[in-house]
Amino acid sequence: MINDDVLEDIRARIAEREELGIRGLAERLGPADWADIVPRLDETEIAALLEILPDSEISELLGELEPEQAADILETLETDQAADLLEQIDPDDATDIVAELSSEDAEQILQAMEPAEAAEIRELLPYAQDTAGGRMTPAFVAIAPDIRADDAIAMLRRVAEEAETIYYVYVLDPQEKLLGVLSLHHLVLTRPSTPVGDLMVADPLRVQAEADQETAARLLVDNNLLALPVVDDQDRLLGIITQDDIADVLEEEATEDIERLGGSQPLEMPYRVASVPVLVRRRVGWLLFLFLAGLLTTQVLVSFQSRLELVPALTLFIPLIVGIGGNVGSQTATTLVRAIGIGEVDIRDAGWVMLKELATGLLIGLILGLAGLLRGGLAAGLQIGIVVALTILVLTIWSSGVAAVLPLILRKIGFDPAVVSAPFIATLVDATGLLIYLTIAGLVLGAL
Amino acid sequence: MINDDVLEDIRARIAEREELGIRGLAERLGPADWADIVPRLDETEIAALLEILPDSEISELLGELEPEQAADILETLETDQAADLLEQIDPDDATDIVAELSSEDAEQILQAMEPAEAAEIRELLPYAQDTAGGRMTPAFVAIAPDIRADDAIAMLRRVAEEAETIYYVYVLDPQEKLLGVLSLHHLVLTRPSTPVGDLMVADPLRVQAEADQETAARLLVDNNLLALPVVDDQDRLLGIITQDDIADVLEEEATEDIERLGGSQPLEMPYRVASVPVLVRRRVGWLLFLFLAGLLTTQVLVSFQSRLELVPALTLFIPLIVGIGGNVGSQTATTLVRAIGIGEVDIRDAGWVMLKELATGLLIGLILGLAGLLRGGLAAGLQIGIVVALTILVLTIWSSGVAAVLPLILRKIGFDPAVVSAPFIATLVDATGLLIYLTIAGLVLGAL
Repeated sequence: MINDDVLEDIRARIAEREELGIRGLAERLGPADWADIVPRLDETEIAALLEILPDSEISELLGELEPEQAADILETLETDQAADLLEQIDPDDATDIVAELSSEDAEQILQAMEPAEAAEIRELLPYAQDTAGGRMTPAFVAIAPDIRADDAIAMLRRVAEEAETIYYVYVLDPQEKLLGVLSLHHLVLTRPSTPVGDLMVADPLRVQAEADQETAARLLVDNNLLALPVVDDQDRLLGIITQDDIADVLEEEATEDIERLGGSQPLEMPYRVASVPVLVRRRVGWLLFLFLAGLLTTQVLVSFQSRLELVPALTLFIPLIVGIGGNVGSQTATTLVRAIGIGEVDIRDAGWVMLKELATGLLIGLILGLAGLLRGGLAAGLQIGIVVALTILVLTIWSSGVAAVLPLILRKIGFDPAVVSAPFIATLVDATGLLIYLTIAGLVLGAL
Repeated sequence: MINDDVLEDIRARIAEREELGIRGLAERLGPADWADIVPRLDETEIAALLEILPDSEISELLGELEPEQAADILETLETDQAADLLEQIDPDDATDIVAELSSEDAEQILQAMEPAEAAEIRELLPYAQDTAGGRMTPAFVAIAPDIRADDAIAMLRRVAEEAETIYYVYVLDPQEKLLGVLSLHHLVLTRPSTPVGDLMVADPLRVQAEADQETAARLLVDNNLLALPVVDDQDRLLGIITQDDIADVLEEEATEDIERLGGSQPLEMPYRVASVPVLVRRRVGWLLFLFLAGLLTTQVLVSFQSRLELVPALTLFIPLIVGIGGNVGSQTATTLVRAIGIGEVDIRDAGWVMLKELATGLLIGLILGLAGLLRGGLAAGLQIGIVVALTILVLTIWSSGVAAVLPLILRKIGFDPAVVSAPFIATLVDATGLLIYLTIAGLVLGAL
């Protein structure tokens, strides 16, 4: 992250329209620095900055911002300038930005662009952002199988500027179907007259354009590739997904999982740009659902009301006990959801996972139960201490078991296991925890 | 993931010692497939598999397993075979495996290895696994600045087998200090007689070996590099971190954050290999801490005991109300921890973050409060309904505010913000939630 001093320096220079100083700074700042600085400037400052910076710097900067932010900036510009800037951004990033514009603005800007570049964007627009098609770029290098290695290198020299990566070259048949791939280092390290058809790796890994972006990212990562070809249902090469997209994809997917685990719907946008109404909408649904589920606790307490009035000391431990159930469940569920998410366990593992978690729950229940015996005994006598201890033991095992098996089942029936969030599991074991508590109290105290 | 049929097929072939069939399969399986299959075989099956597969397949397989698993397998082999296998694995991965061996086994195997390869591992061993040094590989290509482009390509041709990536070539001075970097495509696309010193990008981005692996990963990702040089404090090039490490690093760090957010210490190993005692140790510390913190709820209830006995209906809503506080806090804290984790917000943003979260809390509080008014009113009369509604409103705002500001403060004072887990924030607002509830009850019901 850029520190405050640099930011203040830039602000001061913008305020004084110090063109040379800003351009000098711009040359030293990397793309990620801009992505950090621009959202912290106000509208007037951004407008001034855009006047000062050369177009090449602006397009680099736009490519690094979140698409929403870049679209907001483009909308403040003249159509022609916006079109010129978009032409200089990688088509996959440019498409994400255009997707955020109103369809009217988008059409105007696309009309003003060079036809070839506008066509690339129009081709990418239909693919949802979170699919392989939405992540791919059409800027790949393709050749026919009968071209010689040295001619291929000569061709690479011509297209190096345009292509997203020249480390892989794709070999296509006349119908644009994918035959094979070869890497720049194979080209360079071979006899110049070899036809590329002899050099290529035939039938390389590929994904369908409709495939989930996470599937594509995992294929790239698991096979240590620099780029992955994306094909249509006729096996024609549409584009490639490159390594530099992977970090974004993995980060996006982890963020979604984390937000779900926290008990809300994923924001699907950076926190910074999420407005208060968006935050409320993403959160309130789950909260209302959990509120309704939480009403069960009230029912349990109503049905045991006479017992609670008879032994008021029982009330004192209610929040503590439901809290423990929730905490234990949250630990187990979170660990399991992540293990499922990265493909480490699935439903076939349910057996040993359950055994492992029940054993862990038993040991933890013994430790916490002892603590509960001490505290309950000191506060309200040995009998209450025993009730608290036994409840903690049973609840810990129960909560571990539910939290272990629920994410596996959800995944099996096609749901995202991350909906078993900490709040979800806590709410789920609240009512059952009370039931266990008050039942054990009845048995131990004989106060039926 | 490999499906069950393939696994059963492999098992059957292993049982029948069907060598050709297994070798044929092995050629079709990718490294990630092995990483999936091997942990699901039992010891006898693994031993049989190792006898059948050629060494080159075994070393590929070991490189893809978790270091702990690979070390377990190595320990079952003869020292000489283990040494031969390790020689064929990338030095950074081999080092991670050696680090998991007992120091006696490690020394025996290192002694039996080729001196050059053993020396590389010994050089990498001292760096902690989660630092840039622990992630780097010494298999980079380095040249002097006065070498011509065509000679450099000829040299690349010779070392292509050994190097981890030949897409970047590093230019060093005679003291091995890093002068610059140039990419294979610059080399290929230039006049053959140009000295590499003229082609290189001078003074490239680099990290210190002691730097955190996440810092290194972010530099690579944010600047779209294929590899990042790692230097010592004299600026001498020690190794490089390549793109294929990034996914692992980002995944590891996200897993750690997720486990913390679930309320336990990070496992720092795959769930599959974590034993029950390990799980208990990682989880019980936080649980005991939260148990102690949760005792505050008992204190609050003790001090309001007379009020609860006077109006027993108040007891019915205790779990519901503390639950809502925890859920709201968990949503906010989780979102914030992630935004901090990916560098989107920091303490400087505390102002607008607080405003945003308080506004969100207010709106959510109004919605949930209304639900509470209905439910409380129906169950126990209008007065209780009003108490429940007001409590939910105040608690929601309070909980949002605490959950928003606490992760920012923790980061500022040098703690991992992810310790503000769902269980942590739930426990924290449990006691304050009860205090708010019973105070409001006192005011509304006049039952002091």
